[in-house]
Amino acid sequence: MHSLPFTAESPSNGMAERDFTVGGVPGVLWSPASGADRAPLVLMGHGGGTHKKHLAMVGRAHLLVNGCGFHVAVIDAPGHGDRPRTAYDEQEIAALRKAQATGEPEGPIVVRYHARLAELAVPEWQATLDALQELPEIGTDGPVGYVGIGMGTAIGVPLVAVEPRITAAVFGLMWPDALVEKAKQITVPIEFGMQWDNERIPREASLSLFDAFASKEKTLHANAGKHFEWPRFEADSAVRFFARHLGRTVTSPA
Amino acid sequence: MHSLPFTAESPSNGMAERDFTVGGVPGVLWSPASGADRAPLVLMGHGGGTHKKHLAMVGRAHLLVNGCGFHVAVIDAPGHGDRPRTAYDEQEIAALRKAQATGEPEGPIVVRYHARLAELAVPEWQATLDALQELPEIGTDGPVGYVGIGMGTAIGVPLVAVEPRITAAVFGLMWPDALVEKAKQITVPIEFGMQWDNERIPREASLSLFDAFASKEKTLHANAGKHFEWPRFEADSAVRFFARHLGRTVTSPA
Repeated sequence: MHSLPFTAESPSNGMAERDFTVGGVPGVLWSPASGADRAPLVLMGHGGGTHKKHLAMVGRAHLLVNGCGFHVAVIDAPGHGDRPRTAYDEQEIAALRKAQATGEPEGPIVVRYHARLAELAVPEWQATLDALQELPEIGTDGPVGYVGIGMGTAIGVPLVAVEPRITAAVFGLMWPDALVEKAKQITVPIEFGMQWDNERIPREASLSLFDAFASKEKTLHANAGKHFEWPRFEADSAVRFFARHLGRTVTSPA
Repeated sequence: MHSLPFTAESPSNGMAERDFTVGGVPGVLWSPASGADRAPLVLMGHGGGTHKKHLAMVGRAHLLVNGCGFHVAVIDAPGHGDRPRTAYDEQEIAALRKAQATGEPEGPIVVRYHARLAELAVPEWQATLDALQELPEIGTDGPVGYVGIGMGTAIGVPLVAVEPRITAAVFGLMWPDALVEKAKQITVPIEFGMQWDNERIPREASLSLFDAFASKEKTLHANAGKHFEWPRFEADSAVRFFARHLGRTVTSPA
């Protein structure tokens, strides 16, 4: 038996869904319902203001688990989901809401708040990965991917920069300010998404973050449209990216 | 029976291959070997210095025909393949070879030569499309796509700008100079490829051409690497792009 204490197990959209807690951080592991065969693991970072079981996470997990047979794990970021907000969280969220209401630039607030969340979240992710790799269906020698857009990139870039177990990553939709130096340390294959007409993150800022990655293999996907018009077919593209780099075949065309 | 005179018919890589000539321009039509079911048509423009049955064309046709059931047609560009070179062709090719040998900028030569070829090729493509649409398995009311990289973009952008029958297009790897004004006339969905570290076409030049398309739905795929390191998986991506926009399903995961 494994040492990771699952607190709930249930089926979800054709997947096996298992809740867990590592060091007080709640997470969810989605796996193929067909059984616990050894398969690569994909870690997913959720977006700002959402949580581990947000519809976007369930939908993306469905593509990865049912399309490729991956295991997929998400944990709640600090101050998100089932985790309490600190006074600092409340203060930064209030500052962000005020900036959005008054039309002030939100970038500086998001950048500093997410940078602080990343400091907390990186060791949480590493402890979670330690625990997940104790499961026989994941193991310590299998490939690991990471996908996170928005806040999932703000946390994921520092994580992938220091975590050699992660061998491929999908990022996007984040200001570069706190991330460029971390991106320069990343050499694994990257797929990076941006919106060409993003009204929040300047075009040049997105291009500069993509440019910073030291990866020999990296792909920029820029789509016409504003920040929240990010197209659904990019989630399908991420599945194929992980199939290519983590060594699986897409069995249902995504 | 159809009026398009096929000059040869043979199987090729699991596809039916039919040679034809329209107005003196030689072309090839690849179709599913399983039969002549009505299906969308994809026109392909070959690259500079190559021809309609270049390995890159056969490989891409294989993905489109066997992966999606499309019909796929290529014609030789002026001065290419089975078509004679004029004195003008010889002069421009010599100028290009000289620039490449001496390290002079090749962009201005490619731009002006391809712009001239496009003037000739656009009406040739339109006559070819007229003839292909007389085939019952293609018809006049089915969707039509266009894919061409390099010289295929230099010819394809002016073609798609004036040809309303083409409803989706894949372009890439070309200088913007002669194409920006044409691109501004294009509103159909576009997938555009560039190489992030292209030693021939400056990064800003590629970004400016992508920016010029008036298409509401357009996607830029920028990959790390030099001009000729364009990754094979972009050909798979183009198949899915056409499946999405021409209304087919990818039956074998590409």
